[in-house]
Amino acid sequence: MATVPLLSDDEVDPRALAVFNRIREARGTDYINNFWRALAHDPVALDAVWERLSQIMAPGALDPLVKELIYIAVSTAHGCTYCIHSHTASAKAKGMTPEQHAELLAVIGMASQTNALVTGLGVPVDARFEAN
Amino acid sequence: MATVPLLSDDEVDPRALAVFNRIREARGTDYINNFWRALAHDPVALDAVWERLSQIMAPGALDPLVKELIYIAVSTAHGCTYCIHSHTASAKAKGMTPEQHAELLAVIGMASQTNALVTGLGVPVDARFEAN
Amino acid sequence: MATVPLLSDDEVDPRALAVFNRIREARGTDYINNFWRALAHDPVALDAVWERLSQIMAPGALDPLVKELIYIAVSTAHGCTYCIHSHTASAKAKGMTPEQHAELLAVIGMASQTNALVTGLGVPVDARFEAN
Amino acid sequence: MATVPLLSDDEVDPRALAVFNRIREARGTDYINNFWRALAHDPVALDAVWERLSQIMAPGALDPLVKELIYIAVSTAHGCTYCIHSHTASAKAKGMTPEQHAELLAVIGMASQTNALVTGLGVPVDARFEAN
Amino acid sequence: MATVPLLSDDEVDPRALAVFNRIREARGTDYINNFWRALAHDPVALDAVWERLSQIMAPGALDPLVKELIYIAVSTAHGCTYCIHSHTASAKAKGMTPEQHAELLAVIGMASQTNALVTGLGVPVDARFEAN
Amino acid sequence: MATVPLLSDDEVDPRALAVFNRIREARGTDYINNFWRALAHDPVALDAVWERLSQIMAPGALDPLVKELIYIAVSTAHGCTYCIHSHTASAKAKGMTPEQHAELLAVIGMASQTNALVTGLGVPVDARFEAN
Repeated sequence: MATVPLLSDDEVDPRALAVFNRIREARGTDYINNFWRALAHDPVALDAVWERLSQIMAPGALDPLVKELIYIAVSTAHGCTYCIHSHTASAKAKGMTPEQHAELLAVIGMASQTNALVTGLGVPVDARFEAN
Repeated sequence: MATVPLLSDDEVDPRALAVFNRIREARGTDYINNFWRALAHDPVALDAVWERLSQIMAPGALDPLVKELIYIAVSTAHGCTYCIHSHTASAKAKGMTPEQHAELLAVIGMASQTNALVTGLGVPVDARFEAN
Repeated sequence: MATVPLLSDDEVDPRALAVFNRIREARGTDYINNFWRALAHDPVALDAVWERLSQIMAPGALDPLVKELIYIAVSTAHGCTYCIHSHTASAKAKGMTPEQHAELLAVIGMASQTNALVTGLGVPVDARFEAN
Repeated sequence: MATVPLLSDDEVDPRALAVFNRIREARGTDYINNFWRALAHDPVALDAVWERLSQIMAPGALDPLVKELIYIAVSTAHGCTYCIHSHTASAKAKGMTPEQHAELLAVIGMASQTNALVTGLGVPVDARFEAN
Repeated sequence: MATVPLLSDDEVDPRALAVFNRIREARGTDYINNFWRALAHDPVALDAVWERLSQIMAPGALDPLVKELIYIAVSTAHGCTYCIHSHTASAKAKGMTPEQHAELLAVIGMASQTNALVTGLGVPVDARFEAN
Repeated sequence: MATVPLLSDDEVDPRALAVFNRIREARGTDYINNFWRALAHDPVALDAVWERLSQIMAPGALDPLVKELIYIAVSTAHGCTYCIHSHTASAKAKGMTPEQHAELLAVIGMASQTNALVTGLGVPVDARFEAN
C-alpha cells in the first residue's frame, strides 16, 4: 500500500542514488528503508530531508537516544504507524531498554490524557508560564 | 476562558483540598496552577491523575528532564497550548538549557515533517521494523 | 481574532439573513453566535451546514444530550476551543449536570491515553473485532 | 505488526497475569485482547490503566453505552483504528443498534466538519460561552 | 477490516442503490468504491454526503484538481490512509503530474514542520494578520 | 503568550539578523513577523527553515497561490491558529478572492467530515487505489 511505487536502486535518478549511498555510509548498512525509496521520486526533497535530519539527530545538547524518544512521542501523537515502527527500531539500536520503552509509553499516555483534560476544560495559561 | 470555573481553595471539596496540599508539598510551593483548579470539580479524577502523574514523572529508567521533553513533544503534536507552556516551564525548572530547548523543537519539527511525508506517501512498514 | 470579519445582520447577504432567522426561530433566541456570523460569507455553506446539523442533532436513535456529549468529545480531540465552549454551553442548556460533565471528561481523558498507548505499541486489531 | 511482542499467559510476569485474570472475571470471558497482551510488558501500567478504566467506564451519571459512544468518538478523531474496532465491538455488546451507530457516525462527521470550519475561520469564543 | 460490512448492490436499501447509480452516472464507471459501500448502511447520510461533496468539488472559483490537492492535504494531516489513497487516485485521474504530486507533498511536509515549530514556541498572532 | 521571548533586531545573533535581512529583501517589506522572531533563538534552524520554505513555496509545477491554499489546509487540520492567520494573509496578498477562500474552507470542511466517516467505519483501501 503506497501512493507511489517504492523505487529500487535501478529505478532512481542518479541524484537519489547518491543520497542512498550517503545513507548507507552513515548507517553502515546496505539496507535502504521504504521511506527513502518512496521519497526518492523527488530527489531534491530526498537530499534536503536526509541532510537536515542527519544534522538534527546528531549528538548535541541532547543525546541521540533522547532525540529518538522525542521522535517516537511526536509520531505516536500523529498516529504515524510507519514512523513509530522505524524510530522504535532506531531507539532499540541506540540502546533503548525495555524499561525505558515502557516509561516512554507511560509518559506519552499520561501527556495524551492531561492534554485532553486541559483542552476539554479550556484551561487558560497561568501568567507565570509565559516567557515574556 | 474555561468551560468550568477555576476553584479557589475556599471553593473546593475537602478531598480536592487534600490533593492541592499534596501537590504543594511535593513541589515546595504554595502555588496551584490552573489545570488543577479546573480539574478539582472532580476530586476523584484530581486524585487519580495527580497520583499516576507523580509516579510516571518520577526518576526511573528515564531522567525526569527527559520525561518533560517527551511531555512537551506530545503536547505540541496535540496543539495543547496550556500543556506546552506548563511543561516548558517545568523543563526549565529542571534545568533545560536554551540549546536543549532549541534541539527539542528542531526534532519535533523534523518528526512532524517526516510523519506527514510518510503518511502522504502511504509508506508500508518494513518487515524488519516489526517486533514479532 | 478571525480570518474573516464577523458579519452583522446589516452586512449579510439576504440568503444568509434568512438562515439567521431560521436559526433564531429554531433556538427561540435572537442571539446568533460567532460561528454563523463568520460562515455567513458563504451563504450556500451556511445554509447547507445549518440544515444538515439540525437534522443530525435532532432527537433520533440517540438523545440530543448524548449527541452534544459526542460533539464535545470530537471537538476536544481536535483541539477546537470554540467548539468545545459552544457545545459545552449547549449541553448545559440541554440538562448536562456537573457529574455528567466530569464523567464525560474522564472518558475523553482515558480514551486519549489508551489511544496513545495502543498507537505507540502498534497493536494489531483482533480478528474478532472486525465486522466481516 | 507491533513494536513489542504480544505476550501469552506463559510469558507474562505474575503481576500481569493477575490483571489478566481480573479482566477475565470482570468480562466473563477467557479471551484477552491484543491491547492488554502488548501493555503487559509494563505490569504497573497494565494494572493502573485497567483499574482506572474499569472505574471510569462503570455505570454512573452517564450510561455505560453512552461512555462507549464517547470512546469511539475520541478514538475516531485520533485515528486509532484498533480502538475504534475494539470499542465499536464493546458498544455492540452493550446494545448499540445499527441506527445508533449510524447516528454516532453522523455526529462525529458533522463535528469534524464544523471543527475544521471554525478553525479555518479563526472564530473567537462568544463571551456567553465562557464559564467565568 | 471495517466496523460494518461493505454492502453489495443486492444488500443495500433502494434509496442507497439510487445514490450508487447517481455516483456511477456522474463518474462514468460502474465501480463503487468501499467508502460508499460502508456508508450505505445510512442511506440518508450517503445521499447527503454525496450531494454536498459533488457540489463542493465541482468547478468553481477553484479548479477541481486544486480541490483534490487540498483534499489530500487535509487527509494527510488527519492520517486518513483511505482518503489519501482515494484522493491521490482522483487527482491523478484529473491530471496531477508526478512533479505536482512531489510539490504537494513538499508543501504538506513543510507546513507540518512550521505548524509544530509555531505551536511549540507558542507564537502569538501578529495583529496585521487579523481580519478585523 | 510564548514559550520564548520574541527577539528584536537588537537582540538577535548576527547570523539570525542576516536571515531577517534576506526575508526583508525577498518580501519587499521591513516587517518581520512573530514566527521568525521566536525561531531566531536557533539561528541554524531559522536559516534552514527559511531557505527550504522559500524553495518549496516558489513557483514550480504548482502555482504559489495554490501552495498557500494547501498550507492553510494543513494548518487548519493541525489547528495551528497562528499559521492559519499568517498563510490566509499571504494567500490574500497573492490574490485569493473571497470566493476562493470560501471554496477552500468548504473543501477543508468536507474532507474533515469524510476523513472522520471513513475512519469511524474502518474502510479498507480499494486495491485500485494503490500505486503498486
